[in-house]
Amino acid sequence: MTAEIVSVGTELLLGQIVDTHAPTMARILADCGIACTHRQTVGDNLPRAVAALNDALRRADVVITIGGLGPTQDDLTREAIAEALGDTLESVPEELEKLRKLFALRKFHWVETNARQAMKPTSGRMIDNPNGTAPGLICEKDGKVVIALPGPRNEFDPMAGGAVREFLCRLEGGQVIHSRILRICGMGESLVEEKIRPLMEGLNPTVAPYAHPGEVHLRITARAASREIADRMIEPVEQKIRAILGDHVYGADTTSLEEAIIDILRERDQNVSVAESITGGLLGSRLTSVAGSGDAFLGGVISYAVSVKEAVLGVPHEVLERFGPVSPECAEEMALAAKRITGSDYAVSLTGNAGPTSDADGKPVGLVYIAVASPRGVTVEEVGLGGSRDDIRTRAAFTALTNLRSELLSVGV
Amino acid sequence: MTAEIVSVGTELLLGQIVDTHAPTMARILADCGIACTHRQTVGDNLPRAVAALNDALRRADVVITIGGLGPTQDDLTREAIAEALGDTLESVPEELEKLRKLFALRKFHWVETNARQAMKPTSGRMIDNPNGTAPGLICEKDGKVVIALPGPRNEFDPMAGGAVREFLCRLEGGQVIHSRILRICGMGESLVEEKIRPLMEGLNPTVAPYAHPGEVHLRITARAASREIADRMIEPVEQKIRAILGDHVYGADTTSLEEAIIDILRERDQNVSVAESITGGLLGSRLTSVAGSGDAFLGGVISYAVSVKEAVLGVPHEVLERFGPVSPECAEEMALAAKRITGSDYAVSLTGNAGPTSDADGKPVGLVYIAVASPRGVTVEEVGLGGSRDDIRTRAAFTALTNLRSELLSVGV
Repeated sequence: MTAEIVSVGTELLLGQIVDTHAPTMARILADCGIACTHRQTVGDNLPRAVAALNDALRRADVVITIGGLGPTQDDLTREAIAEALGDTLESVPEELEKLRKLFALRKFHWVETNARQAMKPTSGRMIDNPNGTAPGLICEKDGKVVIALPGPRNEFDPMAGGAVREFLCRLEGGQVIHSRILRICGMGESLVEEKIRPLMEGLNPTVAPYAHPGEVHLRITARAASREIADRMIEPVEQKIRAILGDHVYGADTTSLEEAIIDILRERDQNVSVAESITGGLLGSRLTSVAGSGDAFLGGVISYAVSVKEAVLGVPHEVLERFGPVSPECAEEMALAAKRITGSDYAVSLTGNAGPTSDADGKPVGLVYIAVASPRGVTVEEVGLGGSRDDIRTRAAFTALTNLRSELLSVGV
Repeated sequence: MTAEIVSVGTELLLGQIVDTHAPTMARILADCGIACTHRQTVGDNLPRAVAALNDALRRADVVITIGGLGPTQDDLTREAIAEALGDTLESVPEELEKLRKLFALRKFHWVETNARQAMKPTSGRMIDNPNGTAPGLICEKDGKVVIALPGPRNEFDPMAGGAVREFLCRLEGGQVIHSRILRICGMGESLVEEKIRPLMEGLNPTVAPYAHPGEVHLRITARAASREIADRMIEPVEQKIRAILGDHVYGADTTSLEEAIIDILRERDQNVSVAESITGGLLGSRLTSVAGSGDAFLGGVISYAVSVKEAVLGVPHEVLERFGPVSPECAEEMALAAKRITGSDYAVSLTGNAGPTSDADGKPVGLVYIAVASPRGVTVEEVGLGGSRDDIRTRAAFTALTNLRSELLSVGV
């Protein structure tokens, strides 16, 4: 079975945005054992989109479109699919009702063109889109399948990885390709690879490392007749990796580092607070991205200005005066202060210079101090981080999470 | 004149790498006034590559291939171009000599397949590649042009931006395509479109809306003999849009909303603080993502737990008791408290329920209160936001920025 992806959008053709959805879709197809043999990109132009779909339908069994499902005049993927399949468009009353209710709820102004999003080709059915107004489409006709996905990332990702992935994997019947990802922190990619090299020589399951900012993912992939059999093949390989890498494996599959930390804290009925300077709230934002984090994260202080470090957090004036805000002494005081004023069991602080230039005290770009206060005391780490302002802040937050987890595991219950 | 880009590489089709060369090439085409109307991606497969080139030659005047020019067996773009053009491949003795010398100089082992890189289709000529072993190609035949570029970034970028750009701009005799993006907040895509619809009917410049989370971008694109003339054509359209949408236009091109706000505050020598519950630091993180934000952002409190709202921020116990933490009253107290304890000119607070379930007080998912305290008082807005936990938090932060900017503009200097 072969598939072809058609990305729709003039902004793609003009090179104004980079197409990252098509690669995501291609990886999902590969996971489902379907070969993607061709990709096309067309603009918001009906005859060209129809011609591209006709070419794709001639070459492939499954055609997947991305983008052009919105409410405006230049969103015409729905029309193009209907024309290419020889269908007409029909309105789905329940969808229209749902749309109108959504607009009313959010107090958005209703414009009649929105009704187009409740239309579907006659041979199609809709895929629910809980994150936006345009549903996706699955059309089956004359032995061909056309699937339409919306363009906005927060709508595309869950739909592609959810309902569409499930549908595609069922299409290919027989074999499934199933993966498990082990997530590793506090160890670089080459060291991980060195430690598990013998396991990387297996053919089924395969083991492959992927570097991510601040962490490494190991993907264990098995090909088998069913998901259950694949799981049973993956299991012993996972156990070997865990035995080799120990506590560096912080989670599996979609577990994030902040989730792993919130889980530990909730289990122990303990909590954490933050005092953030360089990251300006990024660490708190990551911790609170976890549903249920309210049981384990109290909050803290964004002490970006020196005045807030002193007045709100209570860092002693002498410390700021003598060592400066970017110093191990200040980081330590910040963590202790956050723990004290929030009454938390643990506290993490960050202070540093994210650039783009050296700060007033001449501290270099990328220098960051991270302190962790715990029931047994306080530790400070100095790190030198590279990259853009954004990179430095992201890596600083990741290192803070890694250090907090490490302290949690050391202290124990 | 129209062009089509054909990217060649199985790793692209499998989604293992993201194609950033094609957008680069598309922008170069636009700059030279050549409309890119289609893009294709094919794997390292000769018949499929030839078919893709034939399709492209049928549709476009200029076909540009990227990748597949190297020395290995799966590099077959050269062969595919020759076949699609009805050419044969011939060896270029000077190129072969140059290659052999290069290998000797770098003490690389010479493998006979390297000689393929000294071959070209009979109707083609070579483009010098000072950064690698594979030269590029320009073939002109029967009124069509085929240009081949190598895949490695350090070879592609200088060749595309140098010799190829020059050749293409000469082809179209001077025309450039130039865009300006206006960034709009506080108004949905369909309403923006309704208000500026007459302007969207223009053919040169064109105006097109693009929806982004929480904001809308309007792209004005002109085609003209020079960048300066294009700018002069865009100017009156921009002024008309600004007149219609007023303060909803917060910036142009790459300016973010947080940058626009930091700019206003810095200009006025004023500053802002935050009190974040539902967003847990996301708003502070966005404001501090702007380089130089230290002049305008003091920090604030992440008052995630009720205890922190009361003890650190100083929200009166009675307010929390009587109205609950997700209430307009609490939002108002949070903003006033942040302003008071940090001594800032403005303060923004957010409290709400990001889900996934109703909170202890039974407040529904997506209900958020946003307060802005300013020198003239405090205002609170209630919003109902949809989507995932992440979406709700992202949109809440965006709405808070929108409301802060709106208050800044209302208060004035």
